[in-house]
Formats: sequence, C-alpha cells, structure tokens
Amino acid sequence: MKVSRRSAVPPFAVMEVLAAANARRAAGADVLNLCAGEPSTGASDVVRERAAEVLRTGDIGYTEALGVPALREAIAGHYDRWYDLEVDPARIAVTTGSSGGFLLAFLAAFDVGDRVALARPGYPAYKNILSALGCEVVELDCGPETRYQPGVSQLMGAYYDGGLDGLVVASPANPTGTMITPDELDAVAEWCAAHEVRLISDEIYHGIAYSDEVTQATAARYAGQGAVVVNSFSKYWAMTGWRLGWLVLPEELVAPVGALAGNVALSPPALAQQAGIAAFSEEGYEAAAENVARYADSRALLLERQAELGWDPVAPADGAFYFYGNIARFGLDSVTYCERLLAEADVAITPGLDFDGVRGRDWVRLSFASAPDVVARAVDRIAAWHKTL
Amino acid sequence: MKVSRRSAVPPFAVMEVLAAANARRAAGADVLNLCAGEPSTGASDVVRERAAEVLRTGDIGYTEALGVPALREAIAGHYDRWYDLEVDPARIAVTTGSSGGFLLAFLAAFDVGDRVALARPGYPAYKNILSALGCEVVELDCGPETRYQPGVSQLMGAYYDGGLDGLVVASPANPTGTMITPDELDAVAEWCAAHEVRLISDEIYHGIAYSDEVTQATAARYAGQGAVVVNSFSKYWAMTGWRLGWLVLPEELVAPVGALAGNVALSPPALAQQAGIAAFSEEGYEAAAENVARYADSRALLLERQAELGWDPVAPADGAFYFYGNIARFGLDSVTYCERLLAEADVAITPGLDFDGVRGRDWVRLSFASAPDVVARAVDRIAAWHKTL
Repeated sequence: MKVSRRSAVPPFAVMEVLAAANARRAAGADVLNLCAGEPSTGASDVVRERAAEVLRTGDIGYTEALGVPALREAIAGHYDRWYDLEVDPARIAVTTGSSGGFLLAFLAAFDVGDRVALARPGYPAYKNILSALGCEVVELDCGPETRYQPGVSQLMGAYYDGGLDGLVVASPANPTGTMITPDELDAVAEWCAAHEVRLISDEIYHGIAYSDEVTQATAARYAGQGAVVVNSFSKYWAMTGWRLGWLVLPEELVAPVGALAGNVALSPPALAQQAGIAAFSEEGYEAAAENVARYADSRALLLERQAELGWDPVAPADGAFYFYGNIARFGLDSVTYCERLLAEADVAITPGLDFDGVRGRDWVRLSFASAPDVVARAVDRIAAWHKTL
Repeated sequence: MKVSRRSAVPPFAVMEVLAAANARRAAGADVLNLCAGEPSTGASDVVRERAAEVLRTGDIGYTEALGVPALREAIAGHYDRWYDLEVDPARIAVTTGSSGGFLLAFLAAFDVGDRVALARPGYPAYKNILSALGCEVVELDCGPETRYQPGVSQLMGAYYDGGLDGLVVASPANPTGTMITPDELDAVAEWCAAHEVRLISDEIYHGIAYSDEVTQATAARYAGQGAVVVNSFSKYWAMTGWRLGWLVLPEELVAPVGALAGNVALSPPALAQQAGIAAFSEEGYEAAAENVARYADSRALLLERQAELGWDPVAPADGAFYFYGNIARFGLDSVTYCERLLAEADVAITPGLDFDGVRGRDWVRLSFASAPDVVARAVDRIAAWHKTL
C-alpha cells in the first residue's frame, strides 16, 4: 500500500555509526561515544525532587494546551533574569520539547508551498520537518566569513530569487556552535520584519556560551515584529528525555498555536512541566552553570590540542557543545573517516554530511557534552589514529 | 505578519463552557464537570512507583525514536494477552500520546491533497490534524442504523465520488461510545485493502467496554494488509498527562515512521516509557479493571435513569465513558443548552457541535469518567433543571 512521499526523510549517516558503535560496545570494546548532542549529567537534583513530590502527591492529568500557568510565568521570569526583557506569560507556549515547538511554529506560520530559508550547515530536523509539512526549504550556504550564520545579503538573494516566507536561525548553532552577534540579529530581524518574512530563532543552546566576543541575544526582543523563539529544557538544563520546551510567540500567533497544540499534542507532559518549574530555582540555575563550566573545560582542551588533533579549520564554537572541524587533509570523506575512526580507534563522532549535503564530506562534528576526561581520551585516540593513516 | 491558513482550526464550543465553569468554580459554585474525557483516578500505584524508582536511579535521556525495546516488547505482549495475536515488537512504535501517534501515522501514510474519510460524529482532532497537514477530510454521515460507525456502502460512495486514500475508524468511538463489530471491522479492513485505502484504527478506548453484544476487535490483525492501529495509555491506564501512546504498524510504514519520529519528536517521554512498562503488570491491569468497573456502574446508572434524564435517543455506549444523547425535545440548541445547564444548574457537559457540525446542535456528550456519585448528582441536577425549562 502507498507510503507518503513526504515520509521519504533522508537517513542520518550517524545512525550507521551509532549502530556500529553499539555493536562494538556489545562485543566488549571500550567505545567513546561523542555523537550525541546530549548532556551526560541529566536533570538536576532539584528538578528530580520536584518530580518525585508530584508523583507522590500530585495530579498528572492533561494540562492547558499551552502549559500550566506557573511554568509559563517562570519562563517569563527567565527572560527578565537573563535578558532584562519583559515577556507576557500569555505569549509563552510550553511545548513537547523544542521538536514540538518547531512543529507548532512551522504549522502556525507557514502553509504548504511556503519557502523557508535556513543555514547550511545546520540541524537536519528543521529541513525534514519543513519538508514533511509541505514547505520548500531554501538552503543558505554559510561559511566562516559570517561565522556560518546567514546574513542580510544572502536573505536578499533568496528573497528576490523566488520569494521567501520564513527564516530559521540558530545561535549557538548546531553543528558549528557559532553565535550570531546582537547587531547581526538586529539586522536580520529588521530585514525580516520589513519583508514580511517570519523569523524563527532556535535558542536551545542559550546559556551554553564561551565567547568573550559575542554576547547572547534573544529574538524574543523582536516578537513585536513577528519573530518566534524556540527554546528547550534539554540542553542548558540537561533534561533531554523529559521532552519539554517552549515558544515565545508574537501576539498574532498565540491563538493559532493554542488551537493547533490542543489538536496536535493535547498538552505537553504534565510531570515534566511541574518539575520544569524547579529548573528556574537558584539550585536549578547553579546545577546548569556547573555543567556549562565542564563543557568549557572540554572546549578549552579541544582548542589547546587542536594542532595535535589536526582538524583545520574548525568553526569558532562560541557556544553549544560541538566542535566542527575540517578533515579534508586526511584524504577520507567524512563518512569513511567516521567509520574507520570507530572501527580502528573506538571513537564515535558524527559525519558532517548529516548537516551539510554540499561540503559536509570534508567535516566532522565532535560533541563535548560528555565528561572532560572522555573528551581528552578521545583526542588521544584520534591523534594516534591519524598517525596510522 | 502572515499567519498560516492551516492554523485556522475551528474553536471547540466546549472551551467556552470550560471557561465559564472555571469562572463559576472560582466564584465559589459547586460545579460538576463532566466535560473532560479524562479518568479522575490517575495512574496506578505500580506505575507511579516505577516512575519514582527511575527518578531516583535511572537515566532520563533521549531514547530510541520508536521507544525503548522493553516497552515495545511489553506492548507486543499485550496483543498476545488480549487478542491472542502475535505482533513483532519491531512493528510497534511508541509515541507521545495517541496525538503523536496520529500525527506520525498521517504523515507517513498521506500526502498533501490526499482524501481521508472519517465518521461524523467523531473526535474533532482527527479532522483538524489532517487539515493542518494538507489532507482533504471526507466526512461520512453515520447514524444509529450502523451504530454511528462507517460501513462499506458509505466507503464505496466516497471512493467513487472523488477517490479515497485513507479511512479513520474509532471503536469504541468518541463521542458515541459505540463499537464496530468484528464482522464489520473485517468487512471494512478487507474493502480498504482491496481498494488501497489506508485504514487507521483508533483503539484508545479498548478495554473500556460494557457490551455483551459487541466484542472488541483490533485492526492489528489487518496490519499485513496495511492497517495502522493507534492506541494510548491515557484512557484504560488513566495516564493522560504522561503523554504516552503507541502505533502498530504494517511493515512498509516502520522505516518511514521511524525516520519521521526522529525528526518530528526525537523520542517519546523517557520517564513515561519506563513507567509505562509497569502498566502491563498484573497490578497495572487490575487497577485499570477497577476503573472500568466504576465506569460500568456510572453507565448502568445513566441507562437506568435515562427516562428521568430525558435524553432520547442516546447512542448505545458500548464502550468508552461517554453518554451521547439527543436533546432536541428541549427546544434549545446544544450550545445554549450547555451554557444554560452550567449557569442554572452548575453541570458542565459538552455541546454536540464539537463532534458533528451538521446534527450536533441536537446532541450533547456527558463524560462519566469521574466518580459515580458525581455522575449521580449530575443526573439529579439535569432532571431538576429540565423541569424549569
């Protein structure tokens, strides 16, 4: 029987690496897995304790489609704390992870056939969700000269060459870790508003930043001009499996997102919502900051040993926990490089082809979300393996 | 800035009733809320305890996109236990509630412009999700002569009048509670297979059944011919806010659903998945059976007092926990009836217009998922209120 055309999502090359890694591990090998964009620590104690309390005493039923009021208020408070920005809790939608947030934002903003631009390299799920929803994806080729971020001149090009309905930006970005400067974000947001292009800003790595040069800027400041922010509890608060995220919405999208959410998701996970409130406590922020300090150590180690590692160039890694490096000098395409690195040195990393269908065969992504000693051992192994090539 | 056309989801009339009910409750009124399709008991102890254990000791990270293997195996075991049917765990996809299951099933099976039939009256989210995904909804007018379920003759009509790509059936159905007989399901499934029409069977109320006449039949039996089953932990296991459900997939949809799930949802909630395994323990089944016994008491009470209640006819309520009755004799459309019933007698029920845009002004839905004494008091109040009309 017929299978939909839109379900023909391209497979991720990393899945082959992961399957091979699991097989090697099952066979007894000491595999270092640096594929996953997932903090190894898990949720903080204060979040777990709050969840345990709700389990003992509370109701875990359906909630409001846009989330429980106390969590929406806590998220609004977070914008005051971090960005000195007043956000009406009524414009915050709690979602089932940032994945659920992207789905709702894309459904509310774009129709079948709409054209939406995004950076290449970039997180592949944006493209795949948009395609599944019938949107046309416009890839913007982004390189080191713009910190792998899209700029206004590229937007102009796409706009006059077929029209443009939306733009997805991510800062810090996956896989490069690069950030968009406040001035650049300002220029992009103003351009989008002036051209009726809906800006969707992925800020799920906010709070995980290392740069002295680039300050973290939120597109929530431009919600009045139509911008949508997508965020998550998965990265900064290390709550991946809880499936909790949020949107900051412009006024005109609140009712549409609410109506869609009630039908498409009913409500976000109730226990996670209650526990998520505790993420915004002092203990919650402190636990997250400790994780970030650990990522910073790993990042410093990677930069210090970059010559030894031999990847050149590497993206700046202003934030997030990814090290995206060029491996062209080793004469292997990224898929072969990753396969052999795993088979011969037991280190699993992600081929760049998953993020960039054009240049990705020369790039690989290493996630330093795991413990610093794991990252250090991985560098040892990679450097030693390079000598065997 | 532009809002998508597809986000123009029709509002639910019940939302007005709920807002008014909350306002009355906040003002001190003793409101009986029989709107929600939600068991009042919540998850069983064995499920909560398992969740507490995972919180103390376990990992709550991303899982496999199609769910943890142990849960997929437990679900497969459920088909053996209840239906004497062998299902390969590889054909089971764990989802974020049945909502997440519908989304994935619709995306994997249908493209933009595909025509999908469903019964009227019916659960409005089917229609709304399908429309948001660009599918064309074909409503089949279903009445008492077919227990409000679609039959082959109606399918033939829709098929020859514009073509048909899919059919959604629900048994027990919402709002009517009626069930499809094994013979009817057989006929519908065979017809769908012969005409390349993808059958999607909503079985989220399975296990909540009262009829001696109609046996519960699962479309999982027809997966080999392309049928998809959608199920949930929300109703029988009373785990609404946990957001956990599953699909039984035909072979050809396993890889597409897996690829879509990884992009659209990443993974279902991890804690809920671990706890969900415990739902299939003896204690889990026993706790669920106790809930069903309570619904059966409420249903018996409603049938016994139907003349006093004055709704006529009512749908058979073979299963689920809904009593769908005709209120035309009272000379009020269902929205006005529900508004006045709440304002004058503090009972909140759902206008039929949410389920049936054609005949729904003469029907209302009462949910008997709450405690039997609440249902009894509601009947007292409704009967007394009718005398004031």
